[in-house]
Amino acid sequence: MILQLKPNPEEADLAGLLEYLTKEQIAHHFLKPLQVVVLPKFKNERSFSSFPVIQKIYPIDTPYQLASKAYQEKTIVTVNDVSVGDGLFNIMAGPCSVENEEQIFKTAEFLSKQGVKFLRGGAYKPRTSPYSFRGLETEGLKLLRKAADTYNMRVVTEILDLSLLDEVMGYADVLQVGSRNMHNFYLLHELGKINKPVLLKRGFQGKVVEWLLAAEYILSGGNGNIILCERGIRSFDPSSRNILDLGVVPLIRELSHLPIIIDPSHGTGTASRVIPSSLAAAAIGADGILVEVHPEPAKALSDSEQAISFSQFSQLIEQIKPVVKVTGKQSDIEKVILKTGSL
Amino acid sequence: MILQLKPNPEEADLAGLLEYLTKEQIAHHFLKPLQVVVLPKFKNERSFSSFPVIQKIYPIDTPYQLASKAYQEKTIVTVNDVSVGDGLFNIMAGPCSVENEEQIFKTAEFLSKQGVKFLRGGAYKPRTSPYSFRGLETEGLKLLRKAADTYNMRVVTEILDLSLLDEVMGYADVLQVGSRNMHNFYLLHELGKINKPVLLKRGFQGKVVEWLLAAEYILSGGNGNIILCERGIRSFDPSSRNILDLGVVPLIRELSHLPIIIDPSHGTGTASRVIPSSLAAAAIGADGILVEVHPEPAKALSDSEQAISFSQFSQLIEQIKPVVKVTGKQSDIEKVILKTGSL
Amino acid sequence: MILQLKPNPEEADLAGLLEYLTKEQIAHHFLKPLQVVVLPKFKNERSFSSFPVIQKIYPIDTPYQLASKAYQEKTIVTVNDVSVGDGLFNIMAGPCSVENEEQIFKTAEFLSKQGVKFLRGGAYKPRTSPYSFRGLETEGLKLLRKAADTYNMRVVTEILDLSLLDEVMGYADVLQVGSRNMHNFYLLHELGKINKPVLLKRGFQGKVVEWLLAAEYILSGGNGNIILCERGIRSFDPSSRNILDLGVVPLIRELSHLPIIIDPSHGTGTASRVIPSSLAAAAIGADGILVEVHPEPAKALSDSEQAISFSQFSQLIEQIKPVVKVTGKQSDIEKVILKTGSL
Amino acid sequence: MILQLKPNPEEADLAGLLEYLTKEQIAHHFLKPLQVVVLPKFKNERSFSSFPVIQKIYPIDTPYQLASKAYQEKTIVTVNDVSVGDGLFNIMAGPCSVENEEQIFKTAEFLSKQGVKFLRGGAYKPRTSPYSFRGLETEGLKLLRKAADTYNMRVVTEILDLSLLDEVMGYADVLQVGSRNMHNFYLLHELGKINKPVLLKRGFQGKVVEWLLAAEYILSGGNGNIILCERGIRSFDPSSRNILDLGVVPLIRELSHLPIIIDPSHGTGTASRVIPSSLAAAAIGADGILVEVHPEPAKALSDSEQAISFSQFSQLIEQIKPVVKVTGKQSDIEKVILKTGSL
Repeated sequence: MILQLKPNPEEADLAGLLEYLTKEQIAHHFLKPLQVVVLPKFKNERSFSSFPVIQKIYPIDTPYQLASKAYQEKTIVTVNDVSVGDGLFNIMAGPCSVENEEQIFKTAEFLSKQGVKFLRGGAYKPRTSPYSFRGLETEGLKLLRKAADTYNMRVVTEILDLSLLDEVMGYADVLQVGSRNMHNFYLLHELGKINKPVLLKRGFQGKVVEWLLAAEYILSGGNGNIILCERGIRSFDPSSRNILDLGVVPLIRELSHLPIIIDPSHGTGTASRVIPSSLAAAAIGADGILVEVHPEPAKALSDSEQAISFSQFSQLIEQIKPVVKVTGKQSDIEKVILKTGSL
Repeated sequence: MILQLKPNPEEADLAGLLEYLTKEQIAHHFLKPLQVVVLPKFKNERSFSSFPVIQKIYPIDTPYQLASKAYQEKTIVTVNDVSVGDGLFNIMAGPCSVENEEQIFKTAEFLSKQGVKFLRGGAYKPRTSPYSFRGLETEGLKLLRKAADTYNMRVVTEILDLSLLDEVMGYADVLQVGSRNMHNFYLLHELGKINKPVLLKRGFQGKVVEWLLAAEYILSGGNGNIILCERGIRSFDPSSRNILDLGVVPLIRELSHLPIIIDPSHGTGTASRVIPSSLAAAAIGADGILVEVHPEPAKALSDSEQAISFSQFSQLIEQIKPVVKVTGKQSDIEKVILKTGSL
Repeated sequence: MILQLKPNPEEADLAGLLEYLTKEQIAHHFLKPLQVVVLPKFKNERSFSSFPVIQKIYPIDTPYQLASKAYQEKTIVTVNDVSVGDGLFNIMAGPCSVENEEQIFKTAEFLSKQGVKFLRGGAYKPRTSPYSFRGLETEGLKLLRKAADTYNMRVVTEILDLSLLDEVMGYADVLQVGSRNMHNFYLLHELGKINKPVLLKRGFQGKVVEWLLAAEYILSGGNGNIILCERGIRSFDPSSRNILDLGVVPLIRELSHLPIIIDPSHGTGTASRVIPSSLAAAAIGADGILVEVHPEPAKALSDSEQAISFSQFSQLIEQIKPVVKVTGKQSDIEKVILKTGSL
Repeated sequence: MILQLKPNPEEADLAGLLEYLTKEQIAHHFLKPLQVVVLPKFKNERSFSSFPVIQKIYPIDTPYQLASKAYQEKTIVTVNDVSVGDGLFNIMAGPCSVENEEQIFKTAEFLSKQGVKFLRGGAYKPRTSPYSFRGLETEGLKLLRKAADTYNMRVVTEILDLSLLDEVMGYADVLQVGSRNMHNFYLLHELGKINKPVLLKRGFQGKVVEWLLAAEYILSGGNGNIILCERGIRSFDPSSRNILDLGVVPLIRELSHLPIIIDPSHGTGTASRVIPSSLAAAAIGADGILVEVHPEPAKALSDSEQAISFSQFSQLIEQIKPVVKVTGKQSDIEKVILKTGSL
């Protein structure tokens, strides 16, 4: 249950409520930035009608509270004048890793000409083997920012570790939490305090309730700018790298107000399946896609099997437009953003 | 590897080949109805050029052979003048179980008015508990057939056990192999000998290679009329009944020539997610869908949570038509079948 | 809930109860052979105290009823004077498939000298590929029986399909339901009517509740002689063929009265892990093991990677005896069975 | 492949080797602290015989190299005079979370009287919900250290985030990497630089190869003191919190030299299954167990369902001793450590 407090409550009124909850041994969390008191396990709303400090009571019986659709109808995340979750279908694209200046500039130039407004790219990469390429690190962040600024794009990049937060905040427009960090509660907690949007990938073995609780960590800190991203879950079948759980889109729509996009690159692990999966993502009602694109996929230093080429990307755009259209949305690449903010 | 034999080979030539294979201890299977010799583990094609009985050699290095795209480009299954896998998007619908005459006739009437040409319905039901409704059995088959004949539809129904094969053959146009029977090799073997199409559901924990080997059982018996059907796989997340593996559609397209349809009802387990999942199935390139429809879903004796109502079905049709169209296909419900065969 | 009826109830009394249940729309199943009425969804025991036909009421709120520990404390299955579930640790062994007379006789001779009382062996084999060896069929059954009779052993063999039931009944002492058939409800239903013990393997994708419901199918038909067998479940990790879920032993002990044994051969898929897994099976309290043994594992026609050799089996016996002893059980191979029944 | 260099190589010789590898485009990693060059993808050992700087060549064709049994036969980790992996069966125990002074002292006193030498306890807790108790943090670390020092025990506690490393290093004897952090490569990399043992839990979704690569991150930094810990993996069956993969013990023995212990508390999620699972862990050859013990399990602030009571722990000790004995090991609680080191 969530108790929404009145805008500027009397301090004594608030204290009265909190004392009552403590006395009655009702677990509660006063979230000052949001002016709400969350009672994560309480289900009976009647007893609070007499407290003058309460403006509205939201009866919610899921473990996640602020992430629930019962608390909020819709969230629109705005990234420098481009909105996510607002009826647009957002196309975010770029290489898995930033590899060098030529690669990222070539990609950004190509994508911006196609109308793409979000440039994704990894500077710090989570790699299963210590002997794999781990990214250009700071140099990668700088190149990414420079390319994005040159072509008027927004930067989406991963925050791999809390110790890198200040650095990444200096370059990114959207901070991506990778699949392996969906369970990194210490990091999520800190992301609740920043003022930039977070793209929260689902853990490859994350239950939906755990995913929304990961979002709850960020929401409860006061940061409501969250974009969920399904990227495939691990299954018993080695025939694909992951199982892309597209059915999670209508499920999230029922449970939460947060926008949700699809990553068909990790979701399938194979370039040839990226286009059909993207069309399906649009048809099932996702708010967008996050796609790995590389000038020369075969030479990519990471994820070379799933990155698509420029010509495949053009083909994707051509094919996805009519599908987006019949779902009643508009692709963000077709929208002209007149006033574009800067970092 | 598959050795395709010449149409009417000299007996001595054939014997020569088989003796050679035996002598060389190369595992081989002569499939008389298909006039092929399958060498399931052999990978070197050179040694057979001198055998006059061989018309063509197909080098195939997957465990499945006849199901491989390397052997055949495309399979079109025809069910009484309606084709599956031929560029149409087939919509098969009906209740989980046939419950009584009124229910199945009402459903068939409604569906046929919408243009639906395949009536699905269960007469023998696999139920996890011995205390659940197990179907009307023979009576159910009769009602299903009668309803289909009345409204000029084709019957899709499950063959639950080999002992029921003769009976089901008397009523069905398409024999459905349920998810739990994908591993029932004894049944699959017998289905290779019949002359009716088989709708082969993927096991809820079936790997793709196992699914294609299940098809291989049927194909190797001489029955090439197989429609694959993805119906959701079991995962670690209890938030949906199953994970609908839509990404398997482009994967199957790469591996096999068999048509593939989607069952969004079992795949999601929830009526509200059937429509969006159906749209995604169309967008990702499936050959059709198999949907549970019930006059009064809340009163259904089985699968009541996932059956959609008549009005939801109408809404599905309306929404899916433009998606099918942009994929370059045509929905079979919009196609008039002039000459319709009878059972 | 289970209503246990009095031994020879008045017909009118019984009718009165059943009419009442029907009238009140309480789902119920009168199982005549057991003289019980099962109310699978009913949870309130109070209302039945006035019915004279009822001897005892068992409040049970799991989907399975007769399989529940709340209904029965313990089941001891006796196979020709050797008991399973009676404080002994049973060791069942033999080849995956019966391959020829020499192989099965050699194995039976060796095992019987070690004291082994159960000879396992497959005559009809479920194989993922239609091109794999499917067993010697009837010939295999005959050899198995002959070898067992020669060496005074009991035959455990798989009932692959209902159509083979009469045949297998003629040769087997224990009918094994394979992992893929745990969901074959039509077969399970018929096994409820036979008078021989059933060894019910867990589906590699079977939830515990589904496994106990599979047992319930057999129990509700009147056959209470069931031995559960855990044989590994499918996971996301290809590093072993299966994950042997040993923790299911204490779980089953809490939920059910049925004896449970472990198959470490399929459970690990690798000969070198069979011995340590067997020791763990004994330590965790299983009622026995079912092990694949072959005179020459490398030449086995099926499962060659997981079969252990005679010398490995001797080593297993030597190592497992002290483990069995410290758990307070006795190995059945050390027990002399004076009067041994014949088929 | 690993190239072990001679103890104090000539700089020019080393440079010659590295230049050759670079020129030949052979991916290589010179690990200075270990004096090895790792060629993670190279499989042909012949070409290096002429380089004088190389002492020994280890041909290894798994993705992990230093963690491979082909590189090292056995690792013994010593924690203040108590060894792990040295033929002892180590019993590590304590509460999930340190809750207050009384709780942790009472537990430490009880455990030390039983002979237990490792006190586990959480100060920073990873919790799925932001509204759950997250530990006493610094205060918890202090209490844990004080209790351990008072009762002459070693502290095992979790390093939740890299930002806490300095702090945790000040209190812990063994740093535990939790299941969710097995994929936290940034943290693992830093743990390679410390001089304290790391207890590396398997991710609940971690493949064995990924687990050993996680160990490789630490090993390649120069820290060889790693204890693996299996704690259950996530499955499709909700009937237990996790599936305890005991079969991973013999598998790890084949693949790696690192010691491996079992956490039966998380592995089963239920107190009643902790004792039987512990016995199985001993029987299957694990090097020890890590058990959650609480003075009053029902009142525990975290994991109350799986913690065992003092009397259950005494029972565990009594039952496990004979099992450990028959496996040829000795329990570390029976061993008197004369000279005990201090922090």
